[in-house]
Amino acid sequence: MIKKLFAEFFGTFWLVFGGCGSAIFAAGIPDSGIGILGVALAFGLTVLTMAYAVGHISGGHFNPAVTFGLLAGGKFPAKDLIPYVVAQCIGAIAAAGCLYVILQGAGAFTAEGPGAFATNFYEMAGYHGRSYSMAAAFLAEFLLTAFFLIIIMGATDKYANGKFAGIAIGFALTLIHLISIPITNTSVNPARSLSQAVFVGGNAMSQLWLFWVAPILGGVVGGLIYKFLLQRDSEVVD
Amino acid sequence: MIKKLFAEFFGTFWLVFGGCGSAIFAAGIPDSGIGILGVALAFGLTVLTMAYAVGHISGGHFNPAVTFGLLAGGKFPAKDLIPYVVAQCIGAIAAAGCLYVILQGAGAFTAEGPGAFATNFYEMAGYHGRSYSMAAAFLAEFLLTAFFLIIIMGATDKYANGKFAGIAIGFALTLIHLISIPITNTSVNPARSLSQAVFVGGNAMSQLWLFWVAPILGGVVGGLIYKFLLQRDSEVVD
Amino acid sequence: MIKKLFAEFFGTFWLVFGGCGSAIFAAGIPDSGIGILGVALAFGLTVLTMAYAVGHISGGHFNPAVTFGLLAGGKFPAKDLIPYVVAQCIGAIAAAGCLYVILQGAGAFTAEGPGAFATNFYEMAGYHGRSYSMAAAFLAEFLLTAFFLIIIMGATDKYANGKFAGIAIGFALTLIHLISIPITNTSVNPARSLSQAVFVGGNAMSQLWLFWVAPILGGVVGGLIYKFLLQRDSEVVD
Amino acid sequence: MIKKLFAEFFGTFWLVFGGCGSAIFAAGIPDSGIGILGVALAFGLTVLTMAYAVGHISGGHFNPAVTFGLLAGGKFPAKDLIPYVVAQCIGAIAAAGCLYVILQGAGAFTAEGPGAFATNFYEMAGYHGRSYSMAAAFLAEFLLTAFFLIIIMGATDKYANGKFAGIAIGFALTLIHLISIPITNTSVNPARSLSQAVFVGGNAMSQLWLFWVAPILGGVVGGLIYKFLLQRDSEVVD
Repeated sequence: MIKKLFAEFFGTFWLVFGGCGSAIFAAGIPDSGIGILGVALAFGLTVLTMAYAVGHISGGHFNPAVTFGLLAGGKFPAKDLIPYVVAQCIGAIAAAGCLYVILQGAGAFTAEGPGAFATNFYEMAGYHGRSYSMAAAFLAEFLLTAFFLIIIMGATDKYANGKFAGIAIGFALTLIHLISIPITNTSVNPARSLSQAVFVGGNAMSQLWLFWVAPILGGVVGGLIYKFLLQRDSEVVD
Repeated sequence: MIKKLFAEFFGTFWLVFGGCGSAIFAAGIPDSGIGILGVALAFGLTVLTMAYAVGHISGGHFNPAVTFGLLAGGKFPAKDLIPYVVAQCIGAIAAAGCLYVILQGAGAFTAEGPGAFATNFYEMAGYHGRSYSMAAAFLAEFLLTAFFLIIIMGATDKYANGKFAGIAIGFALTLIHLISIPITNTSVNPARSLSQAVFVGGNAMSQLWLFWVAPILGGVVGGLIYKFLLQRDSEVVD
Repeated sequence: MIKKLFAEFFGTFWLVFGGCGSAIFAAGIPDSGIGILGVALAFGLTVLTMAYAVGHISGGHFNPAVTFGLLAGGKFPAKDLIPYVVAQCIGAIAAAGCLYVILQGAGAFTAEGPGAFATNFYEMAGYHGRSYSMAAAFLAEFLLTAFFLIIIMGATDKYANGKFAGIAIGFALTLIHLISIPITNTSVNPARSLSQAVFVGGNAMSQLWLFWVAPILGGVVGGLIYKFLLQRDSEVVD
Repeated sequence: MIKKLFAEFFGTFWLVFGGCGSAIFAAGIPDSGIGILGVALAFGLTVLTMAYAVGHISGGHFNPAVTFGLLAGGKFPAKDLIPYVVAQCIGAIAAAGCLYVILQGAGAFTAEGPGAFATNFYEMAGYHGRSYSMAAAFLAEFLLTAFFLIIIMGATDKYANGKFAGIAIGFALTLIHLISIPITNTSVNPARSLSQAVFVGGNAMSQLWLFWVAPILGGVVGGLIYKFLLQRDSEVVD
């Protein structure tokens, strides 16, 4: 069990360090910056790489909403829920701490403005000057996490090509970011949202509830959709 | 059969929500927007991810032109054609509805201009200020869907490395968008075109015929090309 | 044999239609254009997709320099060389013809300027205003094709993970374009260079010799390097 | 053994020629340049392509920090360390020499400014005008190489899907560049840093020590972390 928790710790560390890190260090550079596309790719590659590296140890969740969703879908034991979520949150916060230290090595940390330090947000004029309502933000986070779990449940189904699951799930996270960075800066992962809010405080902390409730609810619904509407009992259905 | 239709419903929902959604939310943002490249990647990843998630259930068409093409190529039973196409269209329209709701959460929906709400079009000055003729638009959609079907038929051929089909087919859709977003905003998928036109009306609806006829015709021709010019009867030809 | 030639015809058609097409239609659009990165991705995806679609039929060369290189490396029979190269050239020219027709559907064809209609060139002030000498262009094309063949020979070696060859070879072509589009607009493929020069004439035609000689020479050297310096006779060397 | 060293020579040549080459030739072009995202992709694809091409010959390190890390992790024999590192450094310098010759074919070499000729650096105002301290640069290089080794050790673990290791490891290098090009121009590879510094001299040479010490230290720690905290003795742990 301890090796599973180390796997979740290092995997979630990598998700925050790579995904939020690319956003913090490389997204906003004029002309040659990686933009939303590069950040989306980075988040997906954190999961793709760690899924192949430690997925065989812990299952490779790196995200409390995934752990809740797999529990709802009947693919994860309830007794391991709390340890997994705790390991994920500690890994995420440790990564955010390293990001903070490196960024301060250039004296460039700021807590001002929507999405500062890669925080999630709603009802603030972010990208495009658009301010998405709380309801729109909730719907987007809910739907995207639900589909994330459908893909995770499906790609690891015993009748699927399970060895490709790391590619499918990693690129699913890239796709999710391509859609929703402009809406909420994309959470679909409560541990990731928590870790940035800890260092920024203010609105990031007061809005944090949405980035726990919507993803976990979406994850659970996605797990149930796959289990009851899609999962087959035998190789061929008709 | 019902699980196959759910798979097509959720898969086509994801294609429209992810592909058109990334275009609507993230493409046009100054400086950090994902541009045509990001939208092309998003469309491809919707298919790549869902192919590995539910391809083992329904075959993973998510597109009436694919279903028609596989029928022509001898890989799909005629009796399932209508249910598949209906499930695809309902999934696409449901996704467009969710996109509409979220976009209106920022009060940002508009039906004005070529490609508004990610609609397909021709004979309008779009990207680059270029206006492609109806004939050019038809030829592009026809050719691209024909090659899409050649790739689908080939990558799932019993002599091919079938487990990689999701990667080949998903990235084929990315490639198709890289070529043709500036021409027609890229359809190659009648359900996707329908779903956006339903919410925009006007030109999007009056031009919709082309985005049903050209892709389906291309899909059928592509299926026949693979069947008669490329498909082998035994492992080695000479 | 005829199915192999059809496979090479359609594969090389797709390479030119997709690679050069994305450059012609989508690269130069202000703000949202796909740029060099998108064109590089498109070229690679043409090969990745067709390798999985028809690679099991013809081997998936789509490029005379690859055919020459595999001949030198002992992996292709000399008697099939001419038919393969002819099929590739016809496929490439047919694709360029379709690109011409579609582009003229917006009245946008031009033969003026370095790289017009995606032609290859040297000793002209292209990207960055830099003009690379004939020798530099030759060296770049030679080296890149040599490494392309090392990768092709290696990834399809009987001791390698051959099923991943389509991914490795396709992305190798993407990488080659990331490096060298600014140098020569990237050939490494005589059929591709020929097909664009046919429609543009002028400098594109008078400089065409380099984009046949350097890639074919590079391909042959690459094939020989793999055969004599890298290829193993048994699973373990020491 | 000689074939292993040729594999490391050509692999590291390709890493520098492709990764640094794309930065030198294609990154800074106005509007259509590939930017940080394209360079990050290029570095990753050099490793992905060569891992599938010659990984079955030498293991595919192409990086002294990887060789040291695998030694620490118990996956590489100490007697081969020096020959591997020498082959890597020679390959890297040969590649930098070819880049120099081609670049001078347009008369465009310069040794001025942070990151000239793709050199690594710290305490200079680079991207974003930010100057990262030596400590921040060291921490970033250390952490990123440590995680690189965790991914390499994990993805090639006998209980993992080892055939996907080339994809996971290649894309890990892309991800690492997405995060850290703006910090140090990204080394995580002493041979790559050395090869550029040889041609540029000055600060690139006097700061070279950090890009040997931090990556090798990180690689060793990453190898040890995987070995002692993550590696399982049997297929299921609990």
